[in-house]
Amino acid sequence: MPEFNVTPYDVEGVVDYNKLTRQFGTEKITPELLNRIKKHCGDVHYMLKRGVFFSHRDMNWLLNEYEKGNKFFLYTGRGPSESVHIGHLVPWVFTKWLQDKFDVPLYFQLTDDEKFLFKEKLSLEQTSSHALENALDIIALGFKKKKTFIFRDTKASGTLYPQAIQFAKKITYSTIKGAFGLQDSANIGQIWYTSMQAVPAVLESIRKKHNVPCLIPLGIDQDPHFRVARDVYPKLGYHKPALIHNKFIPGLAGVQGKMSASSEESTIYLKDTPEEVANKIKRYAFSGGKASLAEHRKLGGDTSIDVSYQWLEMMFEPDDKKLLKIKQDYESGKMLTSELKEILINNINAFLKQHQKNREKAKKQLSSFLWEGEKLRKHIEGK
Amino acid sequence: MPEFNVTPYDVEGVVDYNKLTRQFGTEKITPELLNRIKKHCGDVHYMLKRGVFFSHRDMNWLLNEYEKGNKFFLYTGRGPSESVHIGHLVPWVFTKWLQDKFDVPLYFQLTDDEKFLFKEKLSLEQTSSHALENALDIIALGFKKKKTFIFRDTKASGTLYPQAIQFAKKITYSTIKGAFGLQDSANIGQIWYTSMQAVPAVLESIRKKHNVPCLIPLGIDQDPHFRVARDVYPKLGYHKPALIHNKFIPGLAGVQGKMSASSEESTIYLKDTPEEVANKIKRYAFSGGKASLAEHRKLGGDTSIDVSYQWLEMMFEPDDKKLLKIKQDYESGKMLTSELKEILINNINAFLKQHQKNREKAKKQLSSFLWEGEKLRKHIEGK
Repeated sequence: MPEFNVTPYDVEGVVDYNKLTRQFGTEKITPELLNRIKKHCGDVHYMLKRGVFFSHRDMNWLLNEYEKGNKFFLYTGRGPSESVHIGHLVPWVFTKWLQDKFDVPLYFQLTDDEKFLFKEKLSLEQTSSHALENALDIIALGFKKKKTFIFRDTKASGTLYPQAIQFAKKITYSTIKGAFGLQDSANIGQIWYTSMQAVPAVLESIRKKHNVPCLIPLGIDQDPHFRVARDVYPKLGYHKPALIHNKFIPGLAGVQGKMSASSEESTIYLKDTPEEVANKIKRYAFSGGKASLAEHRKLGGDTSIDVSYQWLEMMFEPDDKKLLKIKQDYESGKMLTSELKEILINNINAFLKQHQKNREKAKKQLSSFLWEGEKLRKHIEGK
Repeated sequence: MPEFNVTPYDVEGVVDYNKLTRQFGTEKITPELLNRIKKHCGDVHYMLKRGVFFSHRDMNWLLNEYEKGNKFFLYTGRGPSESVHIGHLVPWVFTKWLQDKFDVPLYFQLTDDEKFLFKEKLSLEQTSSHALENALDIIALGFKKKKTFIFRDTKASGTLYPQAIQFAKKITYSTIKGAFGLQDSANIGQIWYTSMQAVPAVLESIRKKHNVPCLIPLGIDQDPHFRVARDVYPKLGYHKPALIHNKFIPGLAGVQGKMSASSEESTIYLKDTPEEVANKIKRYAFSGGKASLAEHRKLGGDTSIDVSYQWLEMMFEPDDKKLLKIKQDYESGKMLTSELKEILINNINAFLKQHQKNREKAKKQLSSFLWEGEKLRKHIEGK
């Protein structure tokens, strides 16, 4: 048994991200790369600084192109199998920052086909309607209207399918089997699916009729799709897209695996009420604090295993000074677990209050962010 | 080595059609079934009578439904890898007869995606433009306008793909491997493709919002796609489509395999000139005649291996009396190979003269027969 396992379909165990970069053959984000990004953005997003985004492919190439005046576009996605939870936000929040800093288009793929093909019990109607619900959460984050193109695969297939077969022709079953560990009992849609996920990285090149570099922020678990597809892009005359990978935000119950709806209690949804948030965190957030008050005051808490602290670091305390103070106070024993949790609860609830407001507004904006059917086709093919 | 091998991608050897029906598990067309068809059509097409259509699945069920007032629709297709030749016409000529007799809709799928995925050297632009050229030959046969819906997969994928994944979810790689003999080195589009070929059999049911029986006339080599897919239709709430299978028209060089563009000399294209037709048949049509004139007059020719005779029987001499006379004269030695060939040349050229005229006219009709993109989507989905 390996101590951890990461595929697009499952994350198990305590992930050793150093080992994973070697396994996957990606590059670690270096201080030099951070400086290059800082040069263009003025600052560096806390998720970058804190190593939430920790790995990449071809970021230096992407910045070389950028510095030559060859602007990139962004592509990310969402597998709409359920309501959006805190864990899903990491790449999106970072993608929004990139869009703001570089003022570039973003293609946002909702893979209702994928989730239908991989989730035995979900119907296409379900994944497709989850996708629209999820789109509201995406829009609520503040992506730029007119530069953000959200689409469901099944409603965009008139545009995507003719491109996807170009990729499919150059990917063998053996390759998919090797990259994903699929068995011969896999359904033929699962085997095919990587072709559909490859396409959005070339949409802007098709639209502009010349090669436009693409940057894909994504969870490291999604890397295998692009590890496979990146060999194909040059064969079709495109650049390989650059990737930048994030770590998984842990579930409340502990730092193994990634947050998942399969354990409801470990998961905080964007639709949760302030009371639900408070209750879940108080009851379930794994603590790095000591067993007794006296012991805690004496020895302090362990931030490396404390989920509340991890969440603050990865997502909910952007202010470095405040975070450092929390870390010092908690590790010294000055701050108790209950106090740490209170900070997290407050920060999450402040975020969710605003998010839920934005999400209501997003209902009216949905149609201008959705690019599907003929609207997408005309946008890409220009006629 | 088996003495013959039939897959959707290759036909080798002298096919034993009796064995093939057992291998594939289809039913032979019986005199009783011919009578049932005659009852509804007034007559029986010569291709049925002469066993060119020789095998079926669920034809009796289809006629039961028909007799209950539950009309069927037709679906057939074309893999557009090249110009249309004589061999391709068999199922289409018969399909036209069925459409005339039963006055039913026909969905005609041009599988530009399939040919692109299976032919290493063909680009999608090539298969897609072959498809439009082929469509002219199809229209020229006289299918009913407003009841005939021709489409290319890549231009219909907005409608087909969301349906195809429903099939894909219920077909495993193991099943495809077993049915088609594909290897792990197959590309993932080839493995996926059966899902796309399954869809047109349900389009009329989607359109009408209730189950409409479907009849698919097709070469027996295409049966494996539906053998696999027929298990899935009921799981999705549809009837299994009925199939009716034709034998392959042999290439000029002899009765092995099927006519194929891979041996140009064995193939007569619908665009050939009268001189080309005459030359090819005179030079290459395998003869069942004897070596010397004297011997031929004495022993007669063998119609069972004579390609010219086979072509007359399968396709180019619909008149039973005339065909019988030719058979008797040839087998008795009264008719020479050169005379037999002359009859075939005349009949083919008479057919092609009319066909080529119709094909010119078809260029103006193309847009009313093509149902692609939004036009197809609205036709099927009704909005």
